[in-house]
Amino acid sequence: MTAVEKLLNKNLEGKFICVGLDTDISKIPIYLSSASNPILEFNQAIINSTKNAAAAYKINFAFYEKDGEKGLKNLSETIEIIPSNTLIIADAKRGDIGNTSSMYAKSVFDYFKCDAVTLNPFMGKDSLEPFLDYKEKLNFILTLTSNKGATDFEKLKLDDGRFLYQAIIEKIVEWNSNNNCGLVFGATNSSELKENVQSFGSLPVLLPGVGAQGGKLEDVIVAFESANKSNFLINISRGILYKSSDKDFAEKASEELVNLNKRVDSVLNETY
Amino acid sequence: MTAVEKLLNKNLEGKFICVGLDTDISKIPIYLSSASNPILEFNQAIINSTKNAAAAYKINFAFYEKDGEKGLKNLSETIEIIPSNTLIIADAKRGDIGNTSSMYAKSVFDYFKCDAVTLNPFMGKDSLEPFLDYKEKLNFILTLTSNKGATDFEKLKLDDGRFLYQAIIEKIVEWNSNNNCGLVFGATNSSELKENVQSFGSLPVLLPGVGAQGGKLEDVIVAFESANKSNFLINISRGILYKSSDKDFAEKASEELVNLNKRVDSVLNETY
Repeated sequence: MTAVEKLLNKNLEGKFICVGLDTDISKIPIYLSSASNPILEFNQAIINSTKNAAAAYKINFAFYEKDGEKGLKNLSETIEIIPSNTLIIADAKRGDIGNTSSMYAKSVFDYFKCDAVTLNPFMGKDSLEPFLDYKEKLNFILTLTSNKGATDFEKLKLDDGRFLYQAIIEKIVEWNSNNNCGLVFGATNSSELKENVQSFGSLPVLLPGVGAQGGKLEDVIVAFESANKSNFLINISRGILYKSSDKDFAEKASEELVNLNKRVDSVLNETY
Repeated sequence: MTAVEKLLNKNLEGKFICVGLDTDISKIPIYLSSASNPILEFNQAIINSTKNAAAAYKINFAFYEKDGEKGLKNLSETIEIIPSNTLIIADAKRGDIGNTSSMYAKSVFDYFKCDAVTLNPFMGKDSLEPFLDYKEKLNFILTLTSNKGATDFEKLKLDDGRFLYQAIIEKIVEWNSNNNCGLVFGATNSSELKENVQSFGSLPVLLPGVGAQGGKLEDVIVAFESANKSNFLINISRGILYKSSDKDFAEKASEELVNLNKRVDSVLNETY
């Protein structure tokens, strides 16, 4: 099954929430600190309780890299627990000159066997091509991000009247000859999302920024509904992982995920 | 010694060449393949033969990440061999939302104990701040890169007449309140370098792209000389590492580095 098929299957089942595994040792339940491997036990419990309702898992590489070798071992072991029919996104924001990007692509796709990756488009097409050459994978490329700093460069106006992020969206549509591109659009920018969603074409969309960062779930779904577009993922990390800081954390995470799915469903039904 | 001091000391000694450790198992001498750890043995030999002439070492993280845990072990062990008075640059091109960038900063500065890092500015100031908060470190931020794809976005013209990369340079100058910012400028763009070098102010500059990528060493130095600017590093990776594919590879690497230093010196002397 290709990465795009995995995503579409989940979307067809009405699952749109991606669980972000930004697992932070300082935020997981304190009682786990006596476990032999707190991070892995936490991830295991979260995945087991959410796997039937999750549309995808997004693994934030930074949270594992900070622990060096040990962190990468946790990363590999976490990936092994995720059911094979569920999309695994390496949230790594890579992008470099060609021969270096080839190595990064080998890392996320061959070594870690992720289905998808997040990429930074700054250096242009040839910096992403080694990833785009993996036809079965899915490459979510940054356009307009969810953070404040998006105004520094992404929202700069070009001399032809477009914003930089709009020029990027156009390029991604052009680069999609293998049907393995997607885009990342920060959910905090709901008005820009509404204005630009038509330009996404058939590209799948990953939307971080709902919850802790201030984006509203309902605003996002309304934007997609207005464009009659249904291949998207709303990422929630902290809002699911740390719903409870007690022994019931996995149960509460699952409850929250089910609740989020219901909220998506109710907006979809309202709109129809 | 801060990272900036390490760089300035080497520049004052007339050393401007940074050795890029993009160690690729398919390019190192074949006889090393029977070694218990070919990559580490190769790096060890290269560092031992070049350490007296190198201005800095740049470690391309991608080349190590592709081997997962084992790769990171090689990365750590390579870093341990480099003399403590020599700048170690983590070429990682990181940049993400704040809490994620904090984790990346922990990885390169706390776990791997690198002196400097390369960063991608696309997501704006708050995506780099966790790195800039490390006052003793040095943050080389991408501006105009050496690859073809630099024309896709970096060279787009803004509505105020500047190119995107020029807007980035101005921001980096502004973000340098801890005197720990530098910039990356691709040596393949020698005319843009000449036109913009005055705008770099006191920022140290890392220049990749000489050699395999087509940039000319002499063009770069002339540009810096014209601006009377002396805190820069010219990175050479493949041109030093793979000068010989035989048992004399480390000796030949050292000879090439010494030769490159002489070429820099001769341009500097011509100009004075």
